[in-house]
Amino acid sequence: MVVRLFVNPPLHEGQSVALTREQAHYLGNVMRMSPGEKLEIFDGQSGGWTARIDELGKRGGTLHTYALARPQRDPPDLWLVFAPIKKARTDFIVEKATELGAARILPVATRFTNSDRIRQDRLQAHAVEAAEQCGGTFVPSVEALQPLDRLLSSWPQDRALIFADEGLSGDPDWAADGTASTLPPAPAAILIGPEGGFSDDERARIRTLPQAAPIALGPRILRADTAAVAALTLWQAKRGDWT
Amino acid sequence: MVVRLFVNPPLHEGQSVALTREQAHYLGNVMRMSPGEKLEIFDGQSGGWTARIDELGKRGGTLHTYALARPQRDPPDLWLVFAPIKKARTDFIVEKATELGAARILPVATRFTNSDRIRQDRLQAHAVEAAEQCGGTFVPSVEALQPLDRLLSSWPQDRALIFADEGLSGDPDWAADGTASTLPPAPAAILIGPEGGFSDDERARIRTLPQAAPIALGPRILRADTAAVAALTLWQAKRGDWT
Repeated sequence: MVVRLFVNPPLHEGQSVALTREQAHYLGNVMRMSPGEKLEIFDGQSGGWTARIDELGKRGGTLHTYALARPQRDPPDLWLVFAPIKKARTDFIVEKATELGAARILPVATRFTNSDRIRQDRLQAHAVEAAEQCGGTFVPSVEALQPLDRLLSSWPQDRALIFADEGLSGDPDWAADGTASTLPPAPAAILIGPEGGFSDDERARIRTLPQAAPIALGPRILRADTAAVAALTLWQAKRGDWT
Repeated sequence: MVVRLFVNPPLHEGQSVALTREQAHYLGNVMRMSPGEKLEIFDGQSGGWTARIDELGKRGGTLHTYALARPQRDPPDLWLVFAPIKKARTDFIVEKATELGAARILPVATRFTNSDRIRQDRLQAHAVEAAEQCGGTFVPSVEALQPLDRLLSSWPQDRALIFADEGLSGDPDWAADGTASTLPPAPAAILIGPEGGFSDDERARIRTLPQAAPIALGPRILRADTAAVAALTLWQAKRGDWT
């Protein structure tokens, strides 16, 4: 397994990269690496680069950027919009959205949202870590929490809003209302409600948007985090970069 | 939200059901319910039943089974075979497999399996809890951990073994080797390796099985738990009960 590290852009061949205290700790103490050893670094923009550790200490260190190891691979233009839930499950959604190739992650506050604030920096760090783990060269940005209403009132005209309506799941007639075959192409977003579902007002508001495309996720009721992973998977397999 | 409780089979109309100490604690202390209130109970075989709390104490209680509230819904004949990983992620796989409609969950020990034992009773309890949460009437059985070799040597002749080969993911040529369009129908199983992947021997062994059907899950490397959810989703949407 190659050790991978996200560093601040931009990278180029021959560049010297200063390590933060946390990065130096990770390489030296967690991964037990030493000067002279190699790893892969990426900046989210210019692909994956082979780098060599030049110096490594308690407070920092230096990497030397060698050659490009693999080209940049950006995900399709797919956003994930979700209502934050319990901490572990919110972390999970950010991790999975990164692995599955979301380009942007937008937390929204809804009527029944379980938490009214998020730690944006912590969630962004989760996205970085997931990209390091999954061999990606792209890190989705995690935006600040915003009210669903505000997001909807300025929703881009050309971007489909794929709406996993939990009212559809668990309903024997669900298939009549929307199926995976109707998934719109990019630019698109997947909107996942909180554990308590959307309010009637919210649901009506979403459905009036011409960009809204309801989908159903089978006959069982899925938790919000499961619905996020399932919807991202279906979209990537049908409309994204899995095909 | 209707409170749902799994109870031991078989249920029938008019039946009196004795609560365990844990069930009584859950209804009385966690859900704050009292005698006279109603809930839904299910036994995994006969659908969901409306029940009324007759007695509720510290050490147990009694429910009265009213009428059938919804028919039994069994998932398609799909197994999930997976190598246990870290505790939280193993719990997660069992929860998600239940929600997404796996009929049977088989943990296997592989060459690079991170843990060589599981708490079968705890994982089974997770499956019960997930079925309670997701409105399901079926609970998949979680089998005892067994060596992958032994499972493969007695693999049922008519059951496809869908094999998420992590060697395929992250490979630009992945699509040439297997895509979601080749997913075989039920009876089927999805096999997910451990974080370290399968060994070369294991991979060769799996590929010699005529029942083996490799699939790829996109250009990024997925964690084992993500791969399990993604593969279950794709199968259900294409071959299972989401269509």
